[in-house]
Amino acid sequence: MKITTLTLLTTASLLASPLAKQAKSTGLVPIPESTTELLKLIENPKNIMNKDKIELGKKLFFDPRLSKSGLISCNTCHNLAEGGDDGVSAAIGHKWTANPSHLNSPTVYNAVFFGSQFWDGRDPDVETQAQGPMQAAPEMSATPLHVENTVKSMPQYVEDFKTAYGKDVKIDFKAIADTIGLFERTLVTPSRFDDFLNGDDKALNKEEKNGLKVFIEKGCVSCHNGIALGGSMQAFEVTGKYKHRDLGDFKGDKNGLVKVPTLRNITQTAPYYHNGGIWSLKESIIEMGRIQLGTKITDKEATAIETFFKALDGRKPEIIYPNLPASTETTPKPDLN
Amino acid sequence: MKITTLTLLTTASLLASPLAKQAKSTGLVPIPESTTELLKLIENPKNIMNKDKIELGKKLFFDPRLSKSGLISCNTCHNLAEGGDDGVSAAIGHKWTANPSHLNSPTVYNAVFFGSQFWDGRDPDVETQAQGPMQAAPEMSATPLHVENTVKSMPQYVEDFKTAYGKDVKIDFKAIADTIGLFERTLVTPSRFDDFLNGDDKALNKEEKNGLKVFIEKGCVSCHNGIALGGSMQAFEVTGKYKHRDLGDFKGDKNGLVKVPTLRNITQTAPYYHNGGIWSLKESIIEMGRIQLGTKITDKEATAIETFFKALDGRKPEIIYPNLPASTETTPKPDLN
Repeated sequence: MKITTLTLLTTASLLASPLAKQAKSTGLVPIPESTTELLKLIENPKNIMNKDKIELGKKLFFDPRLSKSGLISCNTCHNLAEGGDDGVSAAIGHKWTANPSHLNSPTVYNAVFFGSQFWDGRDPDVETQAQGPMQAAPEMSATPLHVENTVKSMPQYVEDFKTAYGKDVKIDFKAIADTIGLFERTLVTPSRFDDFLNGDDKALNKEEKNGLKVFIEKGCVSCHNGIALGGSMQAFEVTGKYKHRDLGDFKGDKNGLVKVPTLRNITQTAPYYHNGGIWSLKESIIEMGRIQLGTKITDKEATAIETFFKALDGRKPEIIYPNLPASTETTPKPDLN
Repeated sequence: MKITTLTLLTTASLLASPLAKQAKSTGLVPIPESTTELLKLIENPKNIMNKDKIELGKKLFFDPRLSKSGLISCNTCHNLAEGGDDGVSAAIGHKWTANPSHLNSPTVYNAVFFGSQFWDGRDPDVETQAQGPMQAAPEMSATPLHVENTVKSMPQYVEDFKTAYGKDVKIDFKAIADTIGLFERTLVTPSRFDDFLNGDDKALNKEEKNGLKVFIEKGCVSCHNGIALGGSMQAFEVTGKYKHRDLGDFKGDKNGLVKVPTLRNITQTAPYYHNGGIWSLKESIIEMGRIQLGTKITDKEATAIETFFKALDGRKPEIIYPNLPASTETTPKPDLN
């Protein structure tokens, strides 16, 4: 469609419905339609995106040889074919070890929008986060040196780094994690909810609009707000009120609080909560009302909210499965122990 | 290019070089250039391909929820981003269990061309093969009922089956394995070697042509022949002469023999042999001469053969990473034990 003054007048905020305006006034923020606007939100100013860096980051994200065993990639726990997670309560890593704190793998989709990373919010961005699971003994269990040596053992990877960053690039653990993080920044999934906030009143049906109203009225939006509908504050109490099992040894942040998870693609990321303790989305909604808001969410209200959540299922970027460079005789051998 | 009588005359066999003719006369067969000819080789007459079946088969191939744990897919051991295998000596499956027979995961690329499946050749085709690892306790460890219930619990999968096979389709374990197998039939990787046999004399460089000559002269071609350069006969002795470790309890076929593996993409599928006992391709070549041919392959000859093997690296089909249907409340829960 050709952009004219007329079409500009008919878009976005000017035509946003009263409900969309209300949603925005309570702190809900759409993923922008404009690529320029989106780029402002997802770019890392210290590592400007280009096609070659994204492509390389994708390869590294999918490469299981970065792990000690040669079998676990970032995609193992953050499966991009699923909801960007693994569908089990607690992440399973090296030697089939469950996360010792019983923590559930959060989705990597839209993680770029989170105010902080990890359930205790200890890392500021996806680049820093990417360094964690590669090294964690119950996850990929690799040393930075293993990761570095693996990548540098394959001429194609070295070539890819030079193409992406210039011939003087230093290929070290940080550069590898930064490139994975850069790829993750592209994993953004605009949904019908965004279309609605951006001015397309028909993007949500009547039931979904009703669900959005209930979501706002019950106060869910007080924690699940911002562009990720969560991800930007530590608000949930880690212990005490949960009736669900397996709290593990996780203590939350310094105030004993857990980061609010995103609600984007929430229908695809069961089981729920930081401990993956609950499988039913409706039950999760009701229990959050009880624990966090001290309010009763009726079955009917929970159904309405769940219906709204379906509109948060996003359009995922098309990912061509990578063709990884072949190992060479100097590539570190898998170590299964 | 428009096909004219003239271009027909200049193609393939008419212009094949003496070396290409010699290679073909010893039993080496190219992947045909013509899609029609290729389809004749890869089609399952009982389950004719269409786009929807292939797309569905791809989803199932990548879906870890078919396994008991919800974490292991066909792609875990037959990683299409690598050489169609997993890069470890013996396959690692459910609960981090190594294949009890110390068997190395064979590549799924070009497996459609194998005369039989599995190292002991016990299954006739990729469809039957696909049923095995899903059920094997040390692999995906699922029951047929688990696989069936998982697929049927997701309306999108049910819809996909109807679109692919018609509305009366019976979604059972066999239909699921058959669809995975159908997708695997498309995993064919034509290489520069095929271009050479198909008449493009410049497709191989001088060193590669020399390597092909040595490969033929040393007798490697007596086992590594046919379109897969292997895969079609049981020829290797399972025990006795190997100096490499970890023979496990594998007994081979009824004559104690092991299937000859394909050499296509062999540079990407270390470690080698049915027990994954050897990492160096050159060393593998020399030892095969000693064990199988009773002949000394010199270091120089092995280097020549290895150089030729690089021309067997194929052009892989482009695979768009699937978007799997979300689990529902009736989807069987992952069982990690």
